[in-house]
Amino acid sequence: MGSLEEPLNQLSAKELTAGIARGRFTVEEIIDACLAHITAREDTLGAWAYLDGEAALVQARDLDSGPVRGPLHGVPVGIKDVFDTFDMPTEMGSPIYTGHRPANDASVVAMLRAAGAVILGKTVTAEFAGMFPGKTVNPHDPARTPGGSSSGSAAAVADDMVPVALGSQTGGSVLRPASFCGVIGFKPSYGAISRVGLKFAAESLDTVGIFARSIDDVALVTDVFTGQALAAGGEVAQEPVIGFCRTFLWETAASETTAALEDAKARLEAAGATLTEVGMAEAFAGLAEARDRINAYERAHAMAFEWHHHRSDISDRLSVTLAQGFATPYDDYMGAIKFAENMRTGLDDLFGANDVLLVPCVPGVAPLGLESTGDPAFQGLWTILHVPTITLPTHQSDDGLPVGIQLVGRPRDDHHLLSVARWVMARAGAQ
Amino acid sequence: MGSLEEPLNQLSAKELTAGIARGRFTVEEIIDACLAHITAREDTLGAWAYLDGEAALVQARDLDSGPVRGPLHGVPVGIKDVFDTFDMPTEMGSPIYTGHRPANDASVVAMLRAAGAVILGKTVTAEFAGMFPGKTVNPHDPARTPGGSSSGSAAAVADDMVPVALGSQTGGSVLRPASFCGVIGFKPSYGAISRVGLKFAAESLDTVGIFARSIDDVALVTDVFTGQALAAGGEVAQEPVIGFCRTFLWETAASETTAALEDAKARLEAAGATLTEVGMAEAFAGLAEARDRINAYERAHAMAFEWHHHRSDISDRLSVTLAQGFATPYDDYMGAIKFAENMRTGLDDLFGANDVLLVPCVPGVAPLGLESTGDPAFQGLWTILHVPTITLPTHQSDDGLPVGIQLVGRPRDDHHLLSVARWVMARAGAQ
Repeated sequence: MGSLEEPLNQLSAKELTAGIARGRFTVEEIIDACLAHITAREDTLGAWAYLDGEAALVQARDLDSGPVRGPLHGVPVGIKDVFDTFDMPTEMGSPIYTGHRPANDASVVAMLRAAGAVILGKTVTAEFAGMFPGKTVNPHDPARTPGGSSSGSAAAVADDMVPVALGSQTGGSVLRPASFCGVIGFKPSYGAISRVGLKFAAESLDTVGIFARSIDDVALVTDVFTGQALAAGGEVAQEPVIGFCRTFLWETAASETTAALEDAKARLEAAGATLTEVGMAEAFAGLAEARDRINAYERAHAMAFEWHHHRSDISDRLSVTLAQGFATPYDDYMGAIKFAENMRTGLDDLFGANDVLLVPCVPGVAPLGLESTGDPAFQGLWTILHVPTITLPTHQSDDGLPVGIQLVGRPRDDHHLLSVARWVMARAGAQ
Repeated sequence: MGSLEEPLNQLSAKELTAGIARGRFTVEEIIDACLAHITAREDTLGAWAYLDGEAALVQARDLDSGPVRGPLHGVPVGIKDVFDTFDMPTEMGSPIYTGHRPANDASVVAMLRAAGAVILGKTVTAEFAGMFPGKTVNPHDPARTPGGSSSGSAAAVADDMVPVALGSQTGGSVLRPASFCGVIGFKPSYGAISRVGLKFAAESLDTVGIFARSIDDVALVTDVFTGQALAAGGEVAQEPVIGFCRTFLWETAASETTAALEDAKARLEAAGATLTEVGMAEAFAGLAEARDRINAYERAHAMAFEWHHHRSDISDRLSVTLAQGFATPYDDYMGAIKFAENMRTGLDDLFGANDVLLVPCVPGVAPLGLESTGDPAFQGLWTILHVPTITLPTHQSDDGLPVGIQLVGRPRDDHHLLSVARWVMARAGAQ
């Protein structure tokens, strides 16, 4: 054991489970390495809402003392603090829930534990997975936002505190922080993964997401949640057919985003992929307003209890959204729901013959300042369409800040999207 | 005050709020009347999982001492024990959650309180809103099932313990007990009402439902949940155009069901409605298997925590379903999801020019015995189609047991369905 070339906290989940299987190190050694790195960095980064090192070591020793429990045996995972955990507080980034202890685990947490993962701790979330930020900073520049709302999960994975973390996306809460922090962020198809024990932000949009530093790890965790070795099937057999879709937001993107997309396009073409420019019907632009309306209405209803019992503990920013939501006429809400449903029926036309779409992920690099977690427009468009999307940390700005690209899959075609992403990840990087 | 012709527990929510507004009685008197009736009947009926009369009276006095809080001011409501309540246990019909106290209210409960309702207590649910029954019996014959899983809510409303109660429907858990107990049961469109704080059974099917003895009351509560006076608009202006759809289950229905449907058809035609026989494409029959598959897969995932930590406290019946769910390949699950989505696109063709469909609600009257809550096939077909449905207590068998009819609305056309139901309710009854 010991004497490894690479510190254990820098290994992927796949490497960790392989190393444990070969007896190269123990789960306890993994957790020790992660905790040591967190101790060194957490004061700067602020990625964790709750961390009990001793309790994590108890989980580790328990795993070391028994047989291999499952495909994530010994893998430390960070859990966004909007998922219930029976053995840790779940505070949702809100003083309303200071010290709150749920009676059970969210289903995804229970499935991770059953697969052998060590639930290392709870990562910082913006207030109720919204726009009011927590304490986390960007690991590449502490003066910049890490993005949100899954701020702590993105930062913790980017900083090698954990190989894998969970998030949730209602607008752009997984892909935006992943792009800003320089890691992979995967939002499966709406409905693909159980949300039991997730505090809903907006029920018809909320989707469980995964942060990791490799496609292998995204696939490993996805397989645990779907109960099937779906995503681990490796690369696509043939060069993918990719639609290059600038979207109606292209003109609002900074040069680092447009440059990353154009560069990725060129590299993928050079590697043998077929790329075709895909135009987006003008009607898709209406999805931004529809998403805002649905988000406000459903958030208000989701927070009826907090609104009526703890209003003074809700941030001003969220209160404005909730007040808008409660004031939204049901017919307007239902109009937005029907508009979104109708636009989803146009996805076949949008994709055409393409396996996936290559689209911008963020307006640009992580903005300076910690008051805003950035603009969710580039991600929210796809969230309301319910399609699977993934961001890959393929590019950087001139001054070395990460800027991810985004791949979008057809509805419920998550497996194929991950296979294409694996192919793209190996070829699109500019670094 | 006092000296009323009708006992207060027999009044509708609309009558109660009108009486309070006119100063005819107090909220405390209403609660006193309900509690007295419950005391007399609960030993026989077993409708309540939790009831604290003194706490209900505290709520009542609080309402009496202030201004009118909202459109349900003073209305006692029973809450199916799968919805979280901050001031009462939420046990979900399972020994796993004996004495469990959530930190907050489900959104629907919070909205009821904010509208002035008295949360009288928690009503009996089958285990986790599934098929393993609780203690409730049918108020028309204690040797018969009340139906399930919202057993206590249906029985409590039928027996005049409360005018209104909440339920949830994943297969037929609102409409079946409503039909068996002889009350109105309304399942809105999937997604129309917030499910935050509802323990999910199967996430892509679960829908909040309402039990009441009048359409007015169903409309009143629906309006509170949608934040808009949607449903209270009264009857349809013109005689409705109704499709009479026997469904592929017709041959499995008992004579009391087929007789009720044929009689309703004749009465509605006589009253001026246009009724047309509507055939159902054979493919719809596949929805039964699809619903079973989705139900098992999603239930298993929803109960990952309980399965891994409390398996010995799960009933054998539910354990079989959960084991099936965990063993269901993801591709099979996704196939069922896609099949259901595809069938939903055929609803326009099925409805044709009809405003609503008139269809059977149950195979027949409530079966003898308490081991089974009855067959959900007649309701589950529409649940998986996500359409709004309502059962009306229009008919009885020869020996006086209730057998409801079912009206089905177009997708998200809940308002219109309630208006047609109001018209039908006044004309279709055989009593």
